[in-house]
Amino acid sequence: MLSMAAEKVILVMGDEKKPVTIKEVAKWANVSIATVSRVINNRGHYSEATRTRVQSVINESGYAANNSAKSLRMSKSQTVGIIVPDISNDWFSKIVFELERIFFENQYSVFICNTSESEDKEEAYFRSLESKLVDGIICISGREVLPTNTTNRPIPIICIDRQPKNFRDVCCIESDHFRGGYLATKELIDEGCTRIAIIIKHESISATALRYKGYLQALEDGGIPHDSGLDLTIDADSTNNEGAQRVIDELISKEIPFDGIFGTNDWRAYGAMTSLMAHGIRVPEDVRIIGFDDSPIAVACRPSLSTIHQDVACIAHEASRILLHLMSGGCLEESDRQIMVPVSLIRRGTTCSHKLRA
Amino acid sequence: MLSMAAEKVILVMGDEKKPVTIKEVAKWANVSIATVSRVINNRGHYSEATRTRVQSVINESGYAANNSAKSLRMSKSQTVGIIVPDISNDWFSKIVFELERIFFENQYSVFICNTSESEDKEEAYFRSLESKLVDGIICISGREVLPTNTTNRPIPIICIDRQPKNFRDVCCIESDHFRGGYLATKELIDEGCTRIAIIIKHESISATALRYKGYLQALEDGGIPHDSGLDLTIDADSTNNEGAQRVIDELISKEIPFDGIFGTNDWRAYGAMTSLMAHGIRVPEDVRIIGFDDSPIAVACRPSLSTIHQDVACIAHEASRILLHLMSGGCLEESDRQIMVPVSLIRRGTTCSHKLRA
Repeated sequence: MLSMAAEKVILVMGDEKKPVTIKEVAKWANVSIATVSRVINNRGHYSEATRTRVQSVINESGYAANNSAKSLRMSKSQTVGIIVPDISNDWFSKIVFELERIFFENQYSVFICNTSESEDKEEAYFRSLESKLVDGIICISGREVLPTNTTNRPIPIICIDRQPKNFRDVCCIESDHFRGGYLATKELIDEGCTRIAIIIKHESISATALRYKGYLQALEDGGIPHDSGLDLTIDADSTNNEGAQRVIDELISKEIPFDGIFGTNDWRAYGAMTSLMAHGIRVPEDVRIIGFDDSPIAVACRPSLSTIHQDVACIAHEASRILLHLMSGGCLEESDRQIMVPVSLIRRGTTCSHKLRA
Repeated sequence: MLSMAAEKVILVMGDEKKPVTIKEVAKWANVSIATVSRVINNRGHYSEATRTRVQSVINESGYAANNSAKSLRMSKSQTVGIIVPDISNDWFSKIVFELERIFFENQYSVFICNTSESEDKEEAYFRSLESKLVDGIICISGREVLPTNTTNRPIPIICIDRQPKNFRDVCCIESDHFRGGYLATKELIDEGCTRIAIIIKHESISATALRYKGYLQALEDGGIPHDSGLDLTIDADSTNNEGAQRVIDELISKEIPFDGIFGTNDWRAYGAMTSLMAHGIRVPEDVRIIGFDDSPIAVACRPSLSTIHQDVACIAHEASRILLHLMSGGCLEESDRQIMVPVSLIRRGTTCSHKLRA
């Protein structure tokens, strides 16, 4: 390091106008020319410390600006961060599993960060991922506003499941939540329900808000007046399952009549069913139920749960396609700015007779 | 950077024997003394690039060796890596969720890496985590031998669920799998079963091997001869649920008699139950079933699934306690080298009459 420092002083101070060469960068960083080349072209076989040192010399010597700005801009750590609100939720863990598979196939390591739906944690993880020099971030957020103040350098960010309000150049990929909420409610109406409760949580999140709007629209189209006494909100500290049991227990104890339940995810619907069964209320004969997500619990419970299928594979494919493009230096296409993935209705035992469908 | 490099040359070359001061380190790294102090004492508010540069100057100038070896050794990135074989598996996602909560409370960011049970991926993620300078790793491995060749510096590693063969100073925390396998099999024997099939996958993993040994021991203690025709192995590419359905379908089509099934996790037991029901075989009247893990599916399915409860909270608590101790510079206590967490039998509908227990 001594000789490298000394040589640097002589070289740079001797002729400040002369373009810096890769040979000089290698000398100042005390590595071989081949290593500098590997760092610039992101071909691996060097430590993170070496990479940082080489890049620091490149930045400060002006080598990149003169000779290879594009290569430098492309210099990457081959890592992607995924921010997820609850890794123990079936649907989130499934999409993360799928994303990891695709990025790893494309030579990226994936660091998954669980925020437990905490805004403070989310901000901390944005900062952590940035300090680890990830090349891109996939964010499934609990927040309406991304913590932009943590990002000092431009990292491509793709949002899944919601559109943040404060980002211009972010792409968002989400299921058609409005349509899902509409289809779920319409299924209950088609089966004869007229008093349909809806169970929600985190109502400020766009996915939930859109499902709720779909519910309202289906009621209106079906000529059923909306009764806000059937809007049931789980508090943020409860699990979906336990929270849903509690709100249905309360509805029953208040003797408010209802004949249908739209749980805005499958665990909310499952919790509602557990409460009904404990009170001797039959599903689907007395009350029909529908969920959202099409997670394993929907198939496993008895009666099996009607639900709205979200296309995890398509969401993961689109999110990774666009992030890989951006991380390779591509620009965000206008058509990729907001992608809506279709959903579909899955009819099972909780909305129709057991004799017809198990 | 120019003036810093020049000063460094003068200072160090001028008097190589004189102890290096924090002021000199600050000059050479082109940061304030306060920043050097914060890096040494790991107090944050600096970029990863600054940290690397300061530490590099400390290393090369000999400052740490002369003045503050302990502080340098303790210099940390406040990040922990967790390597997990399948984030979409309930049990793994639950334990990861709990670990993240504890580490975050202790001011550590947690990067979760999913290996999809691939040995190549596991090795790649060990390397990635190391290059990101994590302070410690929790490993739930699919391998019998940890990829030690990737670790160039000593990072504390805690294994959950299995004891690797090639690590001297690794601590392993696991449920008492042998006892669990024994209790599960004994429950079936106590309920009158004499032809008990066992469904396994990844038989080389110690957790599976120990559950199988417990099964054999319970058969022996119950005076029931072991029939290897009832050892059913799911191939590695199948999911637990689908694989278990297939092996039970085969057993039925071969007309091999059996009256009990030990699925070595809950999804294997659930898949077996699905196959039986499709063939009109009643659970528990004709065939009794027990699982392992006590995951949400065990409560949700009908009849509900008897199982072996693993104490996730205790495992996460012990693993984080020991890793936090090691990351603070503590030594591994002999009593912490291998920790066995007790399991318990949960009786539900699949091993006893519906009338008694729903």
